[in-house]
Amino acid sequence: VLPIIGVDLLGSDAPSRELVDTLALFLEQYPSRASFVAFGSPDSFLGLKSSDLLQCVETDEEIHMADDPLKAVRKKKRASMTLGMEMLKEKKIDALISCGNTGALLALSTLKLRPLPNISRPALVASLPTQQDEVAVVDVGANINSSADLLVEFASIGTAYKQCMGVQSPRVALLNIGTEPIKGTKILREAYERLTLTNDKTFTFVGNIEPRDVFKGKVDVIVTDGFSGNIFLKTAEGIGEMLLFDIEQQKATHHPCFEHLCKKLSYSKYPGALLAGCHGLVIKCHGTAKPSALVNSILKAIQLYNENFLDKLEASLKK
Amino acid sequence: VLPIIGVDLLGSDAPSRELVDTLALFLEQYPSRASFVAFGSPDSFLGLKSSDLLQCVETDEEIHMADDPLKAVRKKKRASMTLGMEMLKEKKIDALISCGNTGALLALSTLKLRPLPNISRPALVASLPTQQDEVAVVDVGANINSSADLLVEFASIGTAYKQCMGVQSPRVALLNIGTEPIKGTKILREAYERLTLTNDKTFTFVGNIEPRDVFKGKVDVIVTDGFSGNIFLKTAEGIGEMLLFDIEQQKATHHPCFEHLCKKLSYSKYPGALLAGCHGLVIKCHGTAKPSALVNSILKAIQLYNENFLDKLEASLKK
Repeated sequence: VLPIIGVDLLGSDAPSRELVDTLALFLEQYPSRASFVAFGSPDSFLGLKSSDLLQCVETDEEIHMADDPLKAVRKKKRASMTLGMEMLKEKKIDALISCGNTGALLALSTLKLRPLPNISRPALVASLPTQQDEVAVVDVGANINSSADLLVEFASIGTAYKQCMGVQSPRVALLNIGTEPIKGTKILREAYERLTLTNDKTFTFVGNIEPRDVFKGKVDVIVTDGFSGNIFLKTAEGIGEMLLFDIEQQKATHHPCFEHLCKKLSYSKYPGALLAGCHGLVIKCHGTAKPSALVNSILKAIQLYNENFLDKLEASLKK
Repeated sequence: VLPIIGVDLLGSDAPSRELVDTLALFLEQYPSRASFVAFGSPDSFLGLKSSDLLQCVETDEEIHMADDPLKAVRKKKRASMTLGMEMLKEKKIDALISCGNTGALLALSTLKLRPLPNISRPALVASLPTQQDEVAVVDVGANINSSADLLVEFASIGTAYKQCMGVQSPRVALLNIGTEPIKGTKILREAYERLTLTNDKTFTFVGNIEPRDVFKGKVDVIVTDGFSGNIFLKTAEGIGEMLLFDIEQQKATHHPCFEHLCKKLSYSKYPGALLAGCHGLVIKCHGTAKPSALVNSILKAIQLYNENFLDKLEASLKK
């Protein structure tokens, strides 16, 4: 049975019609990988008919980027994102991808899907390139203030994610400004102690890590509060963009080396962030929502579905 | 009159003799720019004699990288760093550069030099490349927990720094995870309000900035707590190192664009961090302390001395 992927088309910078066309293209390029339910406006689907592989759900309501998340969730009961989340809750779809308002997506996940056992709040997981394998960063912006308990939950979330990517016993580290146990804030020192004493054998806690060493590929999972994690992610993206700009200025984009670099630096190649910790597979597609970003989000959703991410995470949380 | 630059040779990863040799080379390459007082071990100066331009101060005591800063400062009264700080206090030298323990350097500055009026604690200022001009980041690691008051002080420090670099009315922004005033932590929201209402006309407060936009060169000064600032700086450095590694792997080191990128990405080309806010010019040279890093620290010290950085900062703090 193919996974059914829900895609919320509204509320992003990209025209919703471009996103629908990307879905149609995906079905051609990756046949028999998934079918779609798309949530959009009547405009999004103009001249299109629902098919077995691409079902169109129309609505007039949209949660905008600038909307206050909680108000939007309370008032916009027929928004495309809300309809998608409800179908995910009712298991009519197997995953939901949205390019829209992250805060609203978080609020809807928590309200509709409910957190998994032993999870207090969902977190955002992003995957970043290193000199070796990609590293999973939890949290990249869902929880600005994260307690030591929450940071320990992030370790479980990151572990389940990396296990789905084939890493058996992920190396987990705390993002910090030095490696010694006493470094950083009080919360980080508490989390360090908790992670050292944990009974969870699904991962190996390797201590604190500085951002510089993250890119050497020394660990598989980075645990961090949502503020620092977001700074970390956006700094990495920013440097990437600056260098791409530089390479273009130098007219070196056709040199084979720079093609390789450009690929590594283009964050639209990465599948956005996984919203993890609730009873459902939710992916926040990258803000700019370029077609390539959506395709990568879909592929990631299919992979996580096929690898039973939610079951793995639940199993890890019970330990 | 030439500025007299003190250089603490001990406690870094680099052999102290290499650092002395760099000073001698500097005197050849940049004649009539500065004279030096070097603080090292007898080994550092083997076969060398003090001259008018390079005075050697010998000691057997050294503050190591792994030393607890406060203990080291209390117990090692004859350490090279301590001797240097005392000569700076007594105005026998005009600036002090150290490649050693940052915590000890901070503690010594606060104890010996005392903070400037209206400054509660010194901060570390680093300069980073952007698509346009360099941006000054305050604080990159001196104050893990920074109150809103402290963040406002950082704005003055960054402003005085940029004014010495020729920027008349620097654009100052708060590093945050979104641009709206309500974004981020409670402390950041408070600092936002304080900076909006400030009477200080030496800078223009332009609101919150995300790391990504920093690299587009949209602002001259970034204000941030020492934890986030350190994460920001080390992430930027880490990505730079990863990409240099990549380019080398691809054997593209001879492409002209590579040379350009290398220059921008090599953080040893940057002069380390200015320790600002006390009665004295103190520069923390980059950890690896390569000769090029030391030379750049010296040039920065000379520039800040010639531009009367301390006077400019004091004037700005009185407003």
